[in-house]
Amino acid sequence: MNFNVKEETKKIIDFIRNYYKKQNLKGVVIGISGGKDSAVVAGLFTLALGKENVIGVTLPCHSNESDKNDAKIISDKYGFELINIDLTNSFDSFKLEIKKIGTYSQNQTKNSDINLKPRLRMSALYYIAALYTELKNGIYLVAGTSNKSELYVGYFTKGGDSSHDISVLSDFTVEEVIEIGKYIQVPKEVLYKTPSDGLSGQTDEEKLGVKYSQISAYLNNKNSVEKSIKEKIEKLHKSNKHKFNIPEYKRR
Amino acid sequence: MNFNVKEETKKIIDFIRNYYKKQNLKGVVIGISGGKDSAVVAGLFTLALGKENVIGVTLPCHSNESDKNDAKIISDKYGFELINIDLTNSFDSFKLEIKKIGTYSQNQTKNSDINLKPRLRMSALYYIAALYTELKNGIYLVAGTSNKSELYVGYFTKGGDSSHDISVLSDFTVEEVIEIGKYIQVPKEVLYKTPSDGLSGQTDEEKLGVKYSQISAYLNNKNSVEKSIKEKIEKLHKSNKHKFNIPEYKRR
Repeated sequence: MNFNVKEETKKIIDFIRNYYKKQNLKGVVIGISGGKDSAVVAGLFTLALGKENVIGVTLPCHSNESDKNDAKIISDKYGFELINIDLTNSFDSFKLEIKKIGTYSQNQTKNSDINLKPRLRMSALYYIAALYTELKNGIYLVAGTSNKSELYVGYFTKGGDSSHDISVLSDFTVEEVIEIGKYIQVPKEVLYKTPSDGLSGQTDEEKLGVKYSQISAYLNNKNSVEKSIKEKIEKLHKSNKHKFNIPEYKRR
Repeated sequence: MNFNVKEETKKIIDFIRNYYKKQNLKGVVIGISGGKDSAVVAGLFTLALGKENVIGVTLPCHSNESDKNDAKIISDKYGFELINIDLTNSFDSFKLEIKKIGTYSQNQTKNSDINLKPRLRMSALYYIAALYTELKNGIYLVAGTSNKSELYVGYFTKGGDSSHDISVLSDFTVEEVIEIGKYIQVPKEVLYKTPSDGLSGQTDEEKLGVKYSQISAYLNNKNSVEKSIKEKIEKLHKSNKHKFNIPEYKRR
């Protein structure tokens, strides 16, 4: 791993500052999940733009209260404003409409339900970004929080966490994100928490069937992991390719 | 305009069929707004996949009842199933949560409110696609409905109508879409309806400040419109560029 954490962190901060200056932007809205990625993104944007231009949003939706506490730890650490928008009622109202079209088992709506939440969260983040753009008289962007490892195996929801205006971690593996987090002093209880979507009741690694350390090893050197792991990772990558390549009819 | 409607329509249908065959897919979910674009898309997919594999969805959200009637005209014409999911309660539940974080004027939340609706609609379309994928034991995609003219001036909502799995009209101007619609017999009352988002109370052309015919003329030949129109179109295009190019930090 060829990685100078001090240098890369400085470059990311410069990247944010330069883009904001060039486009004449003001602030950023970040969904604070209570996990490491959003914590690191929030830390980087605070260093780049100042805490007064960062809005963190917690977006519970039938969620663990503990995630909200972890979000508070992050906003206390960096000093930015933290807003809470509970999506539980919106989600439940939506489900009531679905009940009107038919009676479906929990198993039949499982995938639909799991992916509805990140889409409602995206909707809420953009709502807040447009609102603050009005209130503060300057443009607010929504920051993405996906890292390279998650992106490679397609571990995100199209139209959910994949919809954002600026992305700073997409070229860093999970281990590298943790290095950056350590360097910018993300509180340990968040930085080393086991990654989970808080939706399915499983950890990310249980859901994926591979370890992040294996994905990172593979991304650094395709021959560094055993064949069965390599195949699993390639299978995930291939079956999620449709999330990146949208077929579009073009005239010849 | 170099455009053979019969040939292009056949090619679009082949494009859909080939993609579905190659990827082993089953059906499609299309939001039926009551306007021409979604009607043409629904007609094309019905011709490509058969009416039994097309699900139309009406997604009212504090909307005109007339749009739902127009959607019914389309589903009657092509014979596909039409589902109604009313998003009004979901929207209102969301707004109640916003009220908890502060008191904002209608003007302050206007942009936020207008763009929340297409995002809830996208969420609903993906919900139905994942549900039918379970119910019918075969993969359902969400179809995009944007045309070339709208896309050029950025007339869509990021994370809303811009999130989809397959797109067939993005290379055709408004006039060309109408030609295709005529050819596949989209009912006239829908095909020639004045385009409006059904959200802002304005027609598209009022909102944009230019006519679609001017955008099309410009797209066919940049020097065919007068300077002031050219400048308006280029300004819209430039100010909406951020919807296409998401800045992403990359290591050197």
